[in-house]
Amino acid sequence: MDNETEEPQIDAPEEDEYTLGRKAVAAILDAVDRDDRDTLVALMEPLHAADIADLLEQIGSYERTRLIRLYDREFDGEILSELDESIREEVIGILAPHVLAEAVRELESDDVVDLVEDLEEPQQAAILGALEDADRVAVEQALAYPEGSAGRLMQREVVMAPEHWTVGQAIDHMRNADTLPDQFYHVILVDPRMHPVGNVTLGRLMAARRDVPLRDLTEDMFRVIPVTQDEEDVAYAFNQYHLISAPVVDDEGRLVGAITIDDAMIVLDEEHEEDILRLAGVGEGSLSDSVAETARQRVPWLAVNLATAILASLVIAQFEDTISRYVALAVLMPIVASMGGNAGTQSLTVAVRALATRDLTGSNVWRVIRREALVGLLNGLVFALVMGAVGLAWFGSPGLGYVIAAAMVINLLVAGVAGTVIPIAMEKFGIDPALASGTFVTTVTDVVGFFAFLGLAGIVLL
Amino acid sequence: MDNETEEPQIDAPEEDEYTLGRKAVAAILDAVDRDDRDTLVALMEPLHAADIADLLEQIGSYERTRLIRLYDREFDGEILSELDESIREEVIGILAPHVLAEAVRELESDDVVDLVEDLEEPQQAAILGALEDADRVAVEQALAYPEGSAGRLMQREVVMAPEHWTVGQAIDHMRNADTLPDQFYHVILVDPRMHPVGNVTLGRLMAARRDVPLRDLTEDMFRVIPVTQDEEDVAYAFNQYHLISAPVVDDEGRLVGAITIDDAMIVLDEEHEEDILRLAGVGEGSLSDSVAETARQRVPWLAVNLATAILASLVIAQFEDTISRYVALAVLMPIVASMGGNAGTQSLTVAVRALATRDLTGSNVWRVIRREALVGLLNGLVFALVMGAVGLAWFGSPGLGYVIAAAMVINLLVAGVAGTVIPIAMEKFGIDPALASGTFVTTVTDVVGFFAFLGLAGIVLL
Repeated sequence: MDNETEEPQIDAPEEDEYTLGRKAVAAILDAVDRDDRDTLVALMEPLHAADIADLLEQIGSYERTRLIRLYDREFDGEILSELDESIREEVIGILAPHVLAEAVRELESDDVVDLVEDLEEPQQAAILGALEDADRVAVEQALAYPEGSAGRLMQREVVMAPEHWTVGQAIDHMRNADTLPDQFYHVILVDPRMHPVGNVTLGRLMAARRDVPLRDLTEDMFRVIPVTQDEEDVAYAFNQYHLISAPVVDDEGRLVGAITIDDAMIVLDEEHEEDILRLAGVGEGSLSDSVAETARQRVPWLAVNLATAILASLVIAQFEDTISRYVALAVLMPIVASMGGNAGTQSLTVAVRALATRDLTGSNVWRVIRREALVGLLNGLVFALVMGAVGLAWFGSPGLGYVIAAAMVINLLVAGVAGTVIPIAMEKFGIDPALASGTFVTTVTDVVGFFAFLGLAGIVLL
Repeated sequence: MDNETEEPQIDAPEEDEYTLGRKAVAAILDAVDRDDRDTLVALMEPLHAADIADLLEQIGSYERTRLIRLYDREFDGEILSELDESIREEVIGILAPHVLAEAVRELESDDVVDLVEDLEEPQQAAILGALEDADRVAVEQALAYPEGSAGRLMQREVVMAPEHWTVGQAIDHMRNADTLPDQFYHVILVDPRMHPVGNVTLGRLMAARRDVPLRDLTEDMFRVIPVTQDEEDVAYAFNQYHLISAPVVDDEGRLVGAITIDDAMIVLDEEHEEDILRLAGVGEGSLSDSVAETARQRVPWLAVNLATAILASLVIAQFEDTISRYVALAVLMPIVASMGGNAGTQSLTVAVRALATRDLTGSNVWRVIRREALVGLLNGLVFALVMGAVGLAWFGSPGLGYVIAAAMVINLLVAGVAGTVIPIAMEKFGIDPALASGTFVTTVTDVVGFFAFLGLAGIVLL
């Protein structure tokens, strides 16, 4: 604790109303340090489970263990739901079995699914064992659907009504129901074969007279989600069509559950996280991973980068003679490669993002490739002028100016094309373009950059 | 049309159920080409406004104009809402004034706000003029709030009830109301001074007996959003606390509107888009921007990159003598710089993302910096061994192996620290770390990489 507060504070990021301040965290850790359970519980009481989870992720492993042991019976199941996967297992291991059992029993079945699906066998069994029979069956049924499918995401409890009912019948039915789902926004109308045929929002139901037939109140926008659909597509549908909740159906089109917008929002957020981290070659990491684990996660991409950097060096090695006679080339050559890499990354990111949002489709793929090629050519010409002038001014050689200018045009044109075609091809072959494209694109721009610059120099200058 | 279909199709991205297929697009464009209004309307009829907007974004400007003129009176206001800003102005310019007026009159006032806030003065005036008086006043009041604030995002129509009402009173009130908002999920309880004191979900209201007091049904989770709060913070609160809707209050804490999760989801998606594009130095671009516009948007980042690449070249120039005596250095030096750049980008992306999700705060900033430094050191040692061996094997010089190994350790350690400290410092100074950090980090790794490698070589090898 003490050396934490003694450290200079100049680099601390801005704090705001949704982030737990340093002082609040310090007070909590101080209570833990003094084994003062009452103060700890009092300090944690106003915090939302999501904020407690963030706190647990941000403190060190030793303090985390002590805090959890002291907090003990107060530990809420929702905190587990909110925790990052990387430390969820650790926290579950720390909790006493009866505390864990109590915590998971409070959760909705879809939250339990989310909680257990990534756990190792023994921990998964411990949690399933703690559930009541009905809940355990529901969780096991959900786990039978493929990972990342709508079946894993949906809640099984839905409010439905036969399509011929009136508003009054629906309201009476709900008022007499033993339990209603925690979150629901629609009554789903079903036909006699249990096929969903429409949604009635609760707001409309509320405002209508009792004798109005439900089918007169259905929403225009009605989409049914197949239970095996990928969660990424589910999130896309919610975002594209502004859905609030959608019925989920099995292979025969029968209603088996419902997905609500809050679940879709979480998936959307995770997809974004994955895209941004994959583009940088960071994989699945989280801030609470250990040093060794983080280093290990980053090695593959660095190794691939090393291989491509060596490839680029092999190109340079072909021109050792040229360089030894004209050392200025060694000084200038990284500029051409670097500009190509940057322009390629720009095109690549636009393409990866457009593929993710489905703005880049079969209908405009050629228009986009053409556009990126022209953008590369145009910016190549702009920076050819600039670098040609710099080359001339710096080394006093018009030849060198021409060479670097020509190499710049070639490399930026290639960068625009490669930055667009490579991710499109990846997607076509079923590989996540965010994951794999970056390496290919910078390999292309490095190799082309060095080859064009040194090759032209060999012809023009020697 | 014709040269579109003749093009090879091998690169077309995968199509799925949420993307309009090439054939559907071709049929629509064919109808436009033949001026066949009936077929066009029939083909467009089943499409959601969001899909029509995507279609308009994906086709060329000439076809877009013809399609819109032919579609004419069918043009729905929601299509305008869904259109990307980059072509929204163009489309508004194409629409006949009476069609535009009809289209915007169908929209909810918060959608009109979103539509007009980025338009130029004459177009904005044309749309405001088309609205009925009450709607226009509502839009103008919303525009009085700062851009990107909760006030711009909220809907002004809310359903509220005095805190002492019962379920029956609330239901009767709603049933007798002339109009209810299009989307609402809660009844907001207010005290006599119009301060919101709790939320009752419609589901709970529905399930309760008529004589139950509303205040017995309020949700545990209740957050009030200040009207001046930044929309980014609003989206964070919805995502963190799984809010479905939240009341918005003015400076005196009085209820002035409500924000729903679907609005927050759109903001979250925009923030992600901005982050990912800014990290790549692409700014605000969209696929439907023109070539010249796109090229212009990308110049600033390329210019900054050129400046930093020249800085790195100046470092190399200090060692021209060394290189001319030992050309192998020119072959190997890009490897050290490239590895540092990649490792720095990894650390940087993790830090930028963690700042955006508020996982990196004052409480763990020093732990994260330490962790990234250690990860850099560890991976530096791994790749020092690999590159030392490669250098030795390739050029048969143990000295060269030692030099490249040492430079690798130094540069990857520096990359880890710079990749973390720079974005944190940017955030501290109120600059978006996604926008500005990349340049600084790669400048540091380029300069350090070349300096360490060539400097050590000068000492060890010569």
